[in-house]
Amino acid sequence: MKMNGNLKSYLNKRRSEVDRVLESYLPGPTCEPALIHEAIRYSLFAGGKRIRPILCLAACESVGGRSEVALPFAAAIELLHTYSLVHDDLPAMDNDTYRRGKLTNHKMFGEATAILTGDALLTAAFTMIAEKGLAASVSPKKVLKIILELGSASGSTGMVGGQLNDIESQGKEGLYLEKLKEIHTHKTGVLIRAAIRIGGILGGAGPKKLSQLTAFGEKAGLAFQIADDILDVEGKEETLGKPVGNDQTRGKWTYPALVGVSRAKKEAAVLIEEALESLKSFGPEADSLRHIAYYITHREK
Amino acid sequence: MKMNGNLKSYLNKRRSEVDRVLESYLPGPTCEPALIHEAIRYSLFAGGKRIRPILCLAACESVGGRSEVALPFAAAIELLHTYSLVHDDLPAMDNDTYRRGKLTNHKMFGEATAILTGDALLTAAFTMIAEKGLAASVSPKKVLKIILELGSASGSTGMVGGQLNDIESQGKEGLYLEKLKEIHTHKTGVLIRAAIRIGGILGGAGPKKLSQLTAFGEKAGLAFQIADDILDVEGKEETLGKPVGNDQTRGKWTYPALVGVSRAKKEAAVLIEEALESLKSFGPEADSLRHIAYYITHREK
Repeated sequence: MKMNGNLKSYLNKRRSEVDRVLESYLPGPTCEPALIHEAIRYSLFAGGKRIRPILCLAACESVGGRSEVALPFAAAIELLHTYSLVHDDLPAMDNDTYRRGKLTNHKMFGEATAILTGDALLTAAFTMIAEKGLAASVSPKKVLKIILELGSASGSTGMVGGQLNDIESQGKEGLYLEKLKEIHTHKTGVLIRAAIRIGGILGGAGPKKLSQLTAFGEKAGLAFQIADDILDVEGKEETLGKPVGNDQTRGKWTYPALVGVSRAKKEAAVLIEEALESLKSFGPEADSLRHIAYYITHREK
Repeated sequence: MKMNGNLKSYLNKRRSEVDRVLESYLPGPTCEPALIHEAIRYSLFAGGKRIRPILCLAACESVGGRSEVALPFAAAIELLHTYSLVHDDLPAMDNDTYRRGKLTNHKMFGEATAILTGDALLTAAFTMIAEKGLAASVSPKKVLKIILELGSASGSTGMVGGQLNDIESQGKEGLYLEKLKEIHTHKTGVLIRAAIRIGGILGGAGPKKLSQLTAFGEKAGLAFQIADDILDVEGKEETLGKPVGNDQTRGKWTYPALVGVSRAKKEAAVLIEEALESLKSFGPEADSLRHIAYYITHREK
């Protein structure tokens, strides 16, 4: 499978849909207090790829569901993802100056506003699901299950825990693969897995399909993070929108640092093969999901 | 009405119930990553008064509901409140060293861990409501409404917005009462109002009772913050667990700074009278709520 024109237009179409829902849901940039709404929009509409919501939509379609049903929930996942980026960039965390070619939120608005921006985005994710869920055709019980999926994936035993382990491990000796996989899985993998599972649940997946989607999500999520690590070594600064080699400077635990770029690439390719294998019983409705899996390890940013 | 033995034992009983639910819900302090769970428990079990959950329980009873029904939701409100304290104390925000007689979270665990502790607590609040809601006798639709109440109260147009305004206004000239009321209302009032409304909703309040409870919550919430400001001037450091006079040092906008301690006290007393007036059609089931209103302005910490 190759990244082709069809996939590009699929990704663009889905990204616009997600952006439109976010745009209409959030308070406008002049809504009081204006500073927080300006700061939220600054980070949310900074040119993100919307990979997590798109995976959610494609997973919904892969089991025969209509992606419109999943759209507001998929968009809420992007709010949660953006919160994690804003907080991860903070001086006390990764202390990043650029993201997606723009100053990070705290460099632009100051540290206090950036902390509050992340808090507001995280809160908005759950609020949006509840609000859209009450108006949707989805049963309230299913909406609660989605909140539980997302909350478990992003809390202290999920994404937040992964970020803590990532910071704690920086510059430390004794790097080993199992520990790195665990950090990656929690920091990035769990939210990608949750996005895919939520799409499946909304698409009406039974237990078997849902467990196959879960396996797909786990493999693809880990491959995504390895690809990210490789881009930090091999990517172009103007495409990435942030300096190359950041991870190494900080003594971050990454796949390329541990096993070298070439083995890391192989590892990512194997994971994507395994991910695709999990979908072998799925029909052509899962083709978008399959193509995105390929794209994950072949993107340039 | 006076703070009496009955009220003391009511508050103690309810506080233990809330603590028990939180204790059993949260991952243990040795659960991985242990540091985040230790940090969460450090701030959550630091001797908080649990005023917001207790108001929620008392509001549930005031309309004839059983407080057991509201208990898990009330406890989740305390998770949300604790997140806001941990983040407000951060160096980029209020830069506090002590809270409740203990070092603040970031002084104890470092800034990165404190940011993540707040994030995890905020996430846990919504996750807990969804999880307990799925297991409860409450309808899933009602649970979604509760999440919406809490999310709206705490997001960018609620508590987060209030905190931003509070920080922005520090040390600025042109202090005036309407602006201060607005800051107080958003920073403290909205969450207290939401706690009371959620109790009412879970107790089965009809639209009229709910609107009376809302009015009660608005008045009592503002009185609570004025009382807090007064304690910062008149309180005892050993009782408060933090230095007295903090607000003045920082050029914070407060009631005592604006109108003097004596008028601030009068203002709080009037608000409590008005709050009690809102409950005049309520029967003796609302007595706990009435007594807590009195306690709000007569507490020593």
